[in-house]
Amino acid sequence: MIIARRWPLQFVEHNRLANGLTRTATVTVRGKSFDTPAFMPVGTAASVKALTFPHLLEMGAKICLANAYHLYLRPGTEIIKSLGGLHGFTNWPGAILTDSGGYQVFSMEGVRKITDDGVHFKSYLDGSPHYFDAEKVIDVQLALDPDIAMILDDCTPYPADQARAQKGVDLTVNWAKRAIEYFDSLGLYPETSPNLFGIVQGSVYPQLRRACAERLVELDFTGYAIGGLSVGEPKEDLWSMLEVTVPLLPDDRPRYLMGVGTPEDLVLAVARGVDMFDCVLPTRNGRNGTAFTSRGSITAKAGRYKASNEPLDPDCECFVCQSYSRAYLRHLLNLNHMTACTLISYHNMWFYLKLMESLRKAILENTFSEYMERFLSLYRSGDKSSADAKEDQ
Amino acid sequence: MIIARRWPLQFVEHNRLANGLTRTATVTVRGKSFDTPAFMPVGTAASVKALTFPHLLEMGAKICLANAYHLYLRPGTEIIKSLGGLHGFTNWPGAILTDSGGYQVFSMEGVRKITDDGVHFKSYLDGSPHYFDAEKVIDVQLALDPDIAMILDDCTPYPADQARAQKGVDLTVNWAKRAIEYFDSLGLYPETSPNLFGIVQGSVYPQLRRACAERLVELDFTGYAIGGLSVGEPKEDLWSMLEVTVPLLPDDRPRYLMGVGTPEDLVLAVARGVDMFDCVLPTRNGRNGTAFTSRGSITAKAGRYKASNEPLDPDCECFVCQSYSRAYLRHLLNLNHMTACTLISYHNMWFYLKLMESLRKAILENTFSEYMERFLSLYRSGDKSSADAKEDQ
Repeated sequence: MIIARRWPLQFVEHNRLANGLTRTATVTVRGKSFDTPAFMPVGTAASVKALTFPHLLEMGAKICLANAYHLYLRPGTEIIKSLGGLHGFTNWPGAILTDSGGYQVFSMEGVRKITDDGVHFKSYLDGSPHYFDAEKVIDVQLALDPDIAMILDDCTPYPADQARAQKGVDLTVNWAKRAIEYFDSLGLYPETSPNLFGIVQGSVYPQLRRACAERLVELDFTGYAIGGLSVGEPKEDLWSMLEVTVPLLPDDRPRYLMGVGTPEDLVLAVARGVDMFDCVLPTRNGRNGTAFTSRGSITAKAGRYKASNEPLDPDCECFVCQSYSRAYLRHLLNLNHMTACTLISYHNMWFYLKLMESLRKAILENTFSEYMERFLSLYRSGDKSSADAKEDQ
Repeated sequence: MIIARRWPLQFVEHNRLANGLTRTATVTVRGKSFDTPAFMPVGTAASVKALTFPHLLEMGAKICLANAYHLYLRPGTEIIKSLGGLHGFTNWPGAILTDSGGYQVFSMEGVRKITDDGVHFKSYLDGSPHYFDAEKVIDVQLALDPDIAMILDDCTPYPADQARAQKGVDLTVNWAKRAIEYFDSLGLYPETSPNLFGIVQGSVYPQLRRACAERLVELDFTGYAIGGLSVGEPKEDLWSMLEVTVPLLPDDRPRYLMGVGTPEDLVLAVARGVDMFDCVLPTRNGRNGTAFTSRGSITAKAGRYKASNEPLDPDCECFVCQSYSRAYLRHLLNLNHMTACTLISYHNMWFYLKLMESLRKAILENTFSEYMERFLSLYRSGDKSSADAKEDQ
């Protein structure tokens, strides 16, 4: 039976709130489990910037993201395949999801050409010509051998008029259909095959989001991503698009909001039924010295911390907060020591992963609303640990 | 009794070889022990580049080095003092040795002026004028509160004629005397006071090295460093200066060869009776992608490793060698990912620390000569793990 062959993914829901959307579950893919809501550290090129995989293991990450487009260009899929796929290459024992690269290809205005069949683009490394289509990104991802693979979609830029957004939905659905057909034709074994997730597009048009979701649900993917958001649109559009889309997705399969977001975004999206997230913020901000804390984000390099004996976050139990003062971290940032990037990225990633753990616990114990209210209130209160904290933030 | 007041350092020798020089011992300073021969990771500015202190702990480092001159300029000794000294600032639980900064100040040709009393110099950060003398570097180091502090010495540049080298010895001995007198005058408690080490200078002139050592030994330091070597002189001068100096130093106190060196240097210096080392090579080379291995050093970025499934060092048990292929590390180096610097620095530091562990074991078991011969023979054999390995090294 085709469903069984295609989808070796287990989704076991533990609790669902009265809104019918917010839930906590365990997803198992090829023997690797992760609890949802889950945050996936972003290892675009098979490495999470400034951190090591043992760091991610010790802080409890269970699934990481990598990017097929970047790895296809460098070091090349054949090299990774010959070294045992992404799991062999990275030695990461948890689950791996690869993005198809649709977002990257589509954001390269000027060096790519979209046709109904696929996308022609030039390598940013050497200008060499390449072509991705629905089938090709499956071949690339099968060589990389992740646990979850994404279809090629049209990541519609923002703003887009309705005609452009409609075109994006048509392309995405057409390519999704070709992806499913091609994937099925390969006759993969369910125990060893990656899962394929569909991606809902439709810009900020409710009727397009709805149409795209419905047409993808007919194609019967194991999981559904919501793409093309957090690309510049107002926050209220992000929330209303989730509110339109999530209820249309099958509630026995994971829902993944791509590329989102801040700690507040994660909490508000979980409230709206999202199960999976990825975002570069914890590591990107870590590298530029911005730390997420229970009282909002702080710029660790700020002069007012030069003799501060406080940790980044008084409520955090990560080794950085247990070991180092803001003064120490500021000192390392001033020296441009890469260890500062590592330490703050570590704290930020810990903050994200522990936030997800707290959200799961609150959902399980039916205390999600109270948790959300308390978290947002403290997070929005700002860092009061230094007398003049609000002044230059 | 002045000795007891001045020197809260224990030196317990476990075994000494027939040459009367090569030995293994345990040094205890203010409750913190390290076994010798010991390698001290260099954390110039209170952080070991590209690594974290938990990394150093898990690989068995027991003593780290920091630099008083750098920390005096940034973030400033008062800030570090207010945060609990270097131990509080870094949260490093092992021992800490601070270099006085003599080497740094003396290498700043053009922006420093040496007098018989001390050294005037300008900050490399803002051009502000500063002055270090024998007493001042003790005050600075007492504020930093390491377990071992170094006197201010004249780090004689190479080459130096005999008159210049003689002048360096005179200054060094004069400042050493002032340092001891000043240190004693402070009436510090032995349990909580840092130890003060003398530094033997004398360039490549045996009679000057001898004279300097003898005069410093009269001053009765707890430990003796050998400085002004590995500054450009031929290797045979390094060895002959050690052979002249080491036998003159009291054999119940640690001997520290400053700023040396390669893995081969460490082995050959231990053979000549050196107990302690520091060097930036493991981390500096780690950051530029050069790995130390049991078969010599390799350039991990080399094209021939692009699909290599071999670890950096087939004989190494560090997590980097247990987890990653050369192809993976090369990939990260090509992307300029700082994680590559961390992983290769980790391996290099592990390599150095495990080498010292092996040397201690060989000395204890009276198999040092055989160990040294085997190590040097394999180390000098070059990396044969790739067919064309010798070609582009």
